[in-house]
Amino acid sequence: MNKLPIGIFDSGVGGLTVYRALHDRLPNERFIYLGDTARVPYGTKSLATVERYAIENSQFLASLGIKALVVACNTASALALPAIRKAVGLDVVGVIGPGGRKAVHLTKDHDRPKIGVIATEATVASNAYVEAIRRASATAEVFQSACPLFVPLAEEGWTAETETFSIANKYLGQINAFAPDALVLGCTHYPILSQVIQQTVGENVKLIDSGEATAEEVETLLINKGLSNRDNVAGTRELCDDLDHFYVTDAAERFARVAERFLGAKPSKLEAIEIYGGDQLK
Amino acid sequence: MNKLPIGIFDSGVGGLTVYRALHDRLPNERFIYLGDTARVPYGTKSLATVERYAIENSQFLASLGIKALVVACNTASALALPAIRKAVGLDVVGVIGPGGRKAVHLTKDHDRPKIGVIATEATVASNAYVEAIRRASATAEVFQSACPLFVPLAEEGWTAETETFSIANKYLGQINAFAPDALVLGCTHYPILSQVIQQTVGENVKLIDSGEATAEEVETLLINKGLSNRDNVAGTRELCDDLDHFYVTDAAERFARVAERFLGAKPSKLEAIEIYGGDQLK
Repeated sequence: MNKLPIGIFDSGVGGLTVYRALHDRLPNERFIYLGDTARVPYGTKSLATVERYAIENSQFLASLGIKALVVACNTASALALPAIRKAVGLDVVGVIGPGGRKAVHLTKDHDRPKIGVIATEATVASNAYVEAIRRASATAEVFQSACPLFVPLAEEGWTAETETFSIANKYLGQINAFAPDALVLGCTHYPILSQVIQQTVGENVKLIDSGEATAEEVETLLINKGLSNRDNVAGTRELCDDLDHFYVTDAAERFARVAERFLGAKPSKLEAIEIYGGDQLK
Repeated sequence: MNKLPIGIFDSGVGGLTVYRALHDRLPNERFIYLGDTARVPYGTKSLATVERYAIENSQFLASLGIKALVVACNTASALALPAIRKAVGLDVVGVIGPGGRKAVHLTKDHDRPKIGVIATEATVASNAYVEAIRRASATAEVFQSACPLFVPLAEEGWTAETETFSIANKYLGQINAFAPDALVLGCTHYPILSQVIQQTVGENVKLIDSGEATAEEVETLLINKGLSNRDNVAGTRELCDDLDHFYVTDAAERFARVAERFLGAKPSKLEAIEIYGGDQLK
């Protein structure tokens, strides 16, 4: 069991920032990543559809043999965690709870912490981060903004263009007026733009990368359950090396291209598969 | 047969600009529009996947009773027209042939017309517009550019923001250096940004809306085949009125919102359905 990899799924390429955070924090672990690129994006889809896709993805990863499952997709974490837990008999960690808890933890010196959240329209509408933050701190004030153009800007690799700064200024105007102590990056793509975001909100605002917060909670989970891998492979590990296996449901070539943009490396092991009802069809 | 509606399918909301063009040109006709919002976007998916989705969409529309089928999606028009024609026994019109032919027609005074094409990465990579233009004029010079951020900018409704002009300047720099006589808007979303695009390339460049070109060819087809509707309803017709029926495969509420942004009206008749293998499941 300890030697089994950790499964990660996302609607597409964005979850690679969560993979990077897990890889950096848990260098002894192996990972299997599934990007559902045939059905991306989830953020504009209905609850029923997101649940169905999430269950299919989870069952596929569970069928490969994993010791825990990370739901890197914010939309699936917001909408489908109970359904996923019911469908697979595994520890399942989403990104929203850890992100919300870390924001509260980092602002705990404040009597009434002010926490900003930026995310896709669907995640904002779900109120999932607001609820996660309120569960961790009843006194926290939360303000959310949707930043729809950040995802295509990140995928274009426009991490320092004038237009990205200008769009960030527009999107983050209300966040800046709210003047938060911490700002949750509530979409897996946003860490790619963290420099632009940090500069726009100012150095005093703590940016919370939900992927990093999730990696910390996964580490604690593995230790508490005695599930950590004891083989010492950390010294030889690199991002995207052949200990990690990547699956996509479509367009592997594009995935590899964006992976290189996001991680500086292309997956050594990348396979395109079809998933319906948890079965692998080709 | 003459009274039957015309079917239109697109991967999502973009095809509404093609619906608008058809509606404006053929006010006596009724339309059934299918937006495959559960599986949008097609532009980043593989040939096999796009073909499968296109066939399923076409069979669904054919099962409702239509007299002709318009493939509003550029990606599906580029990759899947032969497969669609094989799957449904109907006249099928894509947007790429008409767009390419109109560009050549409007530049026919030039010995060696220079035609620019802007489209998604997938449409550019398919070379479908280049081939359509070359079939209509062996001497035409063609230059293509992908403009990935135009789709999310159009869906955000950022049709006149500074950032949109700035991004257009960046994307259209090479097109302007090429100095075309005409520029094909090779993605259904781009007509929403036509003012920004026209201003960026200058008033001397003729913009070709593939949707309008398609509507002209559909009109000719109906006349030649004696398929025009002879009931005179034109006087009472409005965009999105209850003579036209809209189906989406997911997230009807968001579709209605973007439809209002694109057309100034929400569909009177809008239904969410599931499509697999041409069957309607719910």
